[in-house]
Amino acid sequence: MRAVIHPSFLIHYHYPSAASALLRSLRYRLPLAAPLFLKVKALSTSASYAELDNARTGRSASLASPPASSDFTQKIDVNPPKGTRDFPPEEMRLRSWLFQNFREVSQLFGFEEVDFPVLESEALFVRKAGEEIKDQCWRYERMTRGRRREHYQWNMDIIGVPNVTAEAELISSIVTFFKRIGITASDVGFKVSSRKVLQEVLRRYTVPESLFSRVCVTIDKLEKIPMDDIKNELRAAELSEQAVEELLQILAVKSLEELEEKLGSSVEALAELKQLFSLAEKYGYSEWIQFDASIVRGLAYYTGIVFEGFDREGKLRAICGGGRYDRLLSTFGGEDVPACGFGFGDAVIIELLKERGLLPELSPKVQNVVCSLGQDLQGAASLVAARLREKGQTVDLVLENKPLKWAFKRAARVNAQRLIIVGSSEWEKGMVGVKILSSGEQYEIKVDELE
Amino acid sequence: MRAVIHPSFLIHYHYPSAASALLRSLRYRLPLAAPLFLKVKALSTSASYAELDNARTGRSASLASPPASSDFTQKIDVNPPKGTRDFPPEEMRLRSWLFQNFREVSQLFGFEEVDFPVLESEALFVRKAGEEIKDQCWRYERMTRGRRREHYQWNMDIIGVPNVTAEAELISSIVTFFKRIGITASDVGFKVSSRKVLQEVLRRYTVPESLFSRVCVTIDKLEKIPMDDIKNELRAAELSEQAVEELLQILAVKSLEELEEKLGSSVEALAELKQLFSLAEKYGYSEWIQFDASIVRGLAYYTGIVFEGFDREGKLRAICGGGRYDRLLSTFGGEDVPACGFGFGDAVIIELLKERGLLPELSPKVQNVVCSLGQDLQGAASLVAARLREKGQTVDLVLENKPLKWAFKRAARVNAQRLIIVGSSEWEKGMVGVKILSSGEQYEIKVDELE
Repeated sequence: MRAVIHPSFLIHYHYPSAASALLRSLRYRLPLAAPLFLKVKALSTSASYAELDNARTGRSASLASPPASSDFTQKIDVNPPKGTRDFPPEEMRLRSWLFQNFREVSQLFGFEEVDFPVLESEALFVRKAGEEIKDQCWRYERMTRGRRREHYQWNMDIIGVPNVTAEAELISSIVTFFKRIGITASDVGFKVSSRKVLQEVLRRYTVPESLFSRVCVTIDKLEKIPMDDIKNELRAAELSEQAVEELLQILAVKSLEELEEKLGSSVEALAELKQLFSLAEKYGYSEWIQFDASIVRGLAYYTGIVFEGFDREGKLRAICGGGRYDRLLSTFGGEDVPACGFGFGDAVIIELLKERGLLPELSPKVQNVVCSLGQDLQGAASLVAARLREKGQTVDLVLENKPLKWAFKRAARVNAQRLIIVGSSEWEKGMVGVKILSSGEQYEIKVDELE
Repeated sequence: MRAVIHPSFLIHYHYPSAASALLRSLRYRLPLAAPLFLKVKALSTSASYAELDNARTGRSASLASPPASSDFTQKIDVNPPKGTRDFPPEEMRLRSWLFQNFREVSQLFGFEEVDFPVLESEALFVRKAGEEIKDQCWRYERMTRGRRREHYQWNMDIIGVPNVTAEAELISSIVTFFKRIGITASDVGFKVSSRKVLQEVLRRYTVPESLFSRVCVTIDKLEKIPMDDIKNELRAAELSEQAVEELLQILAVKSLEELEEKLGSSVEALAELKQLFSLAEKYGYSEWIQFDASIVRGLAYYTGIVFEGFDREGKLRAICGGGRYDRLLSTFGGEDVPACGFGFGDAVIIELLKERGLLPELSPKVQNVVCSLGQDLQGAASLVAARLREKGQTVDLVLENKPLKWAFKRAARVNAQRLIIVGSSEWEKGMVGVKILSSGEQYEIKVDELE
């Protein structure tokens, strides 16, 4: 917000060239995880933009001589790694808004936040990705709309509750989040099933339990690859022709009534799903959820109820997904602890909000711009800024020696409420000029009386 | 907060064994960067703790049979990588509190937040670490108190302002942060200097500018390695004996008056430093800052004013540091853009707050615990929870089928204001029981009248 041309402007009109290169070069100063707060002053000449462009593309002809060791002269690629992205201020405002909503919903539901190192031992993830690496990198997909290699995700997990009350609570929290940001049941729904449905079918055909997760991973690809390929993968997993057919028939089931007809009323999966739908009614989100036997989720470790949020227009990939994973802890060598949870990425939801015209208006906002008229009054302006900040007022202090006209433009750009002008004749009386930007009202006031 | 024994309890009494292993196993479910919100139910038997311990150390004798592919059975090391750490709930509350203060101060000063991918091309950082890698990994130090290999950092940078008004504003923001969290000028100070002081000395002894950053890196080690080693390093950088002596004399200077005596009044460094101290007076933080010629900061790219925050008791390493880096952008191939900024790690400040007894009291807080008396009323409890949450009330809904006594204990542990009890006789009348936990007051109320 420190700018004739503030960062948003830079970014809107010159992204991804000038502003991006500048942001990239700052990355260099940061450790792995660091919030960076920024002011960017005007890069006032078009020559500057061109130079910044050159910085990015390495086309600069005349390098400024570097201050330090000679290895500083080599140009390097400043683009973010493929599939990752920078968050310039207006993107960051959006991400902060999204995460603030995630946090508030999690608090509404009495959850607590935890975090982990960004770097982890490879072993922890090789295992997770196990099935993919073995089977030709299925999940190392092309980057598609709303799917990048690095993404941010909201997660809620309930540990230690074996009952489907936990899954019902998790889905309720996601629904609460959707409602909060303006998404309705006509925009989004949840497809719900249970892996125990498949387990039951496999049990009936005496397919070994060790093949279970492999079958789930295959089935997760139902709408992504041709049916013949699905069948071949299932046959390769040693399922008999009859089992494959039965499985595919079950997967096409879209109601609990039909499921009961096919499997009988005594199977565990059915009782749990019925309880979930009954709880959903009490929570008030029945219209959001529907049974769909084809939902299994891609990860190997789910053991029971699975669900995914989907865009009803069918344009986007899954918005979120989760389920029960009662046996994950034992894979680390301990006893089983019942658990369920979900992941909710930040990318698809933003696409959906764009589609629906629901992106919030998040312009930069500061209450005061404080500007001195002349370099000898810069200290006085600092004093005024400090007083206002002590009172909790946000202040963008003009650090450059600029004319008043410039300060007015800046105040407009950062949506300031007031412009505080420190001029010599007023300052001698311990006063400053105030301009209310919405009304144009203008007056002088003692510094101590500024609120 | 979902627990007879809620996460804080688990962690206080069993960290780093049981709870840590459980947290670690959850890490497995997450992408690189993800806030995770968690509820952990009681792990009620000591056997469970033992098992969790075993999960961590791999000492478990009887493995539960895994659900999926056989490679799930192998145990893996679940410890976080050396030098990194997990953030269980109470650590996370502290980090969130700290970062909330960082954010609010940055907003007070009219800054905007930006962010970068966690993963970066190696080239971007090899350059940054250039001097260290060449010179035997000086900065790959032992992990010490308040210094880990992964850390979180608050950064503020001002781009495009060549004047020292920018540095003055940055130091003001850090002082504002300190005051806000209860740290005073008698706890912490800033040592300030300018690299231009050294530059001036080197210029007088016609030391080539290309050696400048190397000399700075050596000088940054002044209080860390023996003086003879410093001298040898400077001699190795081709400084004459006389230049070395003059340099070391200058570095011992602790006042601007003395600096002026030694270098004369016309040097650029002196004018800038004087302006900074004059602005500090106007901002009102004079008592926080002092000139100290030995401060150069370790990174190669600083070009002017440098500063670092220090603990006046001298027990901790630098709390924060920053300075001007007007020529960083040109190292990426563009033109120079004036810039300055600071980094403020999250580890040393926490140590300082502990030392001073200033750590905030951040217990878990939820307004309501809602509990049903009997499994058939679980849906009714869900309905009550949903109503309260719609009204913005935070609710910890009991998902387990537990006796009332258990719910009371839980309400006490999560510092709930009210316990809402859904019993069958009240529910038939559309009512619930309310117990105000501070006063012990108890009454029945219609669900719709709950506020």
